[in-house]
Amino acid sequence: MATVKAAILGFGTVGQGIYHIVNERKEQLAARTGAPIEIAAILVRNLDKPRPDTPGVLVTDRFEDIFAVPGLEVVFEAIVGEEPAGTYLEQAIKAGCHVVTANKVMYAKAGSSLEALARELGTGVGYEATVAGGVPVIKTIENLNLANEVTGIQGILNGTSNFILTKMRKEECTFADALKEAQELGYAEADPTNDVSGFDAFCKLMILSGLAFGEQPEWERVPMDGIDNLTLDEVVDADRQGLRYRHIADVRRGEDGEIQASVGPVLIGPDHPLYGIDGVDNAVAIETAYAGTLTAIGPGAGMYPTATVMVEDAAVLLLKHPFRKLVTE
Amino acid sequence: MATVKAAILGFGTVGQGIYHIVNERKEQLAARTGAPIEIAAILVRNLDKPRPDTPGVLVTDRFEDIFAVPGLEVVFEAIVGEEPAGTYLEQAIKAGCHVVTANKVMYAKAGSSLEALARELGTGVGYEATVAGGVPVIKTIENLNLANEVTGIQGILNGTSNFILTKMRKEECTFADALKEAQELGYAEADPTNDVSGFDAFCKLMILSGLAFGEQPEWERVPMDGIDNLTLDEVVDADRQGLRYRHIADVRRGEDGEIQASVGPVLIGPDHPLYGIDGVDNAVAIETAYAGTLTAIGPGAGMYPTATVMVEDAAVLLLKHPFRKLVTE
Repeated sequence: MATVKAAILGFGTVGQGIYHIVNERKEQLAARTGAPIEIAAILVRNLDKPRPDTPGVLVTDRFEDIFAVPGLEVVFEAIVGEEPAGTYLEQAIKAGCHVVTANKVMYAKAGSSLEALARELGTGVGYEATVAGGVPVIKTIENLNLANEVTGIQGILNGTSNFILTKMRKEECTFADALKEAQELGYAEADPTNDVSGFDAFCKLMILSGLAFGEQPEWERVPMDGIDNLTLDEVVDADRQGLRYRHIADVRRGEDGEIQASVGPVLIGPDHPLYGIDGVDNAVAIETAYAGTLTAIGPGAGMYPTATVMVEDAAVLLLKHPFRKLVTE
Repeated sequence: MATVKAAILGFGTVGQGIYHIVNERKEQLAARTGAPIEIAAILVRNLDKPRPDTPGVLVTDRFEDIFAVPGLEVVFEAIVGEEPAGTYLEQAIKAGCHVVTANKVMYAKAGSSLEALARELGTGVGYEATVAGGVPVIKTIENLNLANEVTGIQGILNGTSNFILTKMRKEECTFADALKEAQELGYAEADPTNDVSGFDAFCKLMILSGLAFGEQPEWERVPMDGIDNLTLDEVVDADRQGLRYRHIADVRRGEDGEIQASVGPVLIGPDHPLYGIDGVDNAVAIETAYAGTLTAIGPGAGMYPTATVMVEDAAVLLLKHPFRKLVTE
């Protein structure tokens, strides 16, 4: 039967989620896109590390082996860190593959050049998973771009920060204690700097800016603050006044035509669309010219939420671009 | 220059919104889809009724005149009531046109046969505007259908009912007084039966069921209740306990494989995703197999929110289907 050959770069949590969903949804994907997707190869860093069984799949630690797969059409990238992920995706596009990524730091920097390269070579790039995990923010803005106009975006884009702020408010515990619990629950990394400093939310905001406004502001001019300087007293005082600190990433085009963005804790009242968003959820309020404010809420991270939008991205790209490399065996 | 010819059936609030947006966004639509859309003809019921100026557009009260437009490719339907809207759309599809509708009663009944006809004839149907106005619920579920699975849907699908419930709770006014204000503000029709009886939400729920589960439950087996039997005492008592009545439409597949649906007021607590949705907004919480619960919130009605998703639908259909009828003048 003719199949679409795909590879997964990186076989951690998200990579394994992709493998699982592609196999569990094989018939559904075939019915919706016209052909089943087959994971033909997986790139790992360390071949000796234990990992789930993947019968019939080439597992390799050499990137060049991935491209030796005949008819490779889709590359899922689920590697942590900017490089070599960016270089791999560039090479994948040059090899005529669609690429799908969840890598926000890499994509905030290299996204527009990868998209331009893909456009030139007739392939596609999927990056829904880079912003707000399972919440379909990218596709919503892509649709708004057709006939509406995004005038501003405000988002809770870092679930770890929101979990910590929620816990500090509800349980009156310190930042350090809340962070510790976030780490124990697997929400925060061992090194939580990117999350609590605001850099993770910043990268996602830059990706949204590029999509909604066609450009990013100069990075060094964007005020960026994390939640790590908020004291328990400040959070509790706000709560007594019916207000809440939320870590909000904001971007809009100013009256002078310049993009204005900021990332940091903001004190908001009950009328704000992000007031009620508690815990690890992400939420994005998209202000539009014709449809008021549209708010999307959901899980901002996690194995399956991230993996499922990556598989969706691949399906959308396969539907947009006629199959060029179906491999019949 | 080559243009896509479109017609608008019905020139009330929504029809005028479509006309306005298509003209205001002409360049954007051309850049995104490959050719500008031109409103070539408008069907009105009464030619003598005053209406905005539409220079160069054929305005007619005869449906056959619409199809005399050479190369007509898109038909926007913004007529109130089931018929003749359904018949017109069927004829439009048979004439090779893409159709875009906001007509929920008609679409709940005839949607699946219109879609089958369009599929057979190679055209497309857009119906995002039938459910939750400007909130992109249909497109979100279409994407989830690719590789995820909707397991349940709960929605506040009637803005008028939500406005009335919000006002009763916040201002402790009776149902009758709240309804009167909704009518004065233009949220409720002169005859508000469909809104407050639950039938409007019911029709939207049936459309969502068809999309998410591939079928609708038997209509007469779905319990349907409106907000018109709720007393002020009940609403105020609930509020004092920290609970809220929301008019919720719910659909899911039961363990026996049967679709289970209900429409009516439900008492919910602060942990429910629809607890915080006040006023005329609509909100839909979509429960999924892989991405937890995704909630989308926004304006459920209104001239521009409804019109803009209809123009988006047309753009999506034009992108999906190669232009077949570009008219060069």
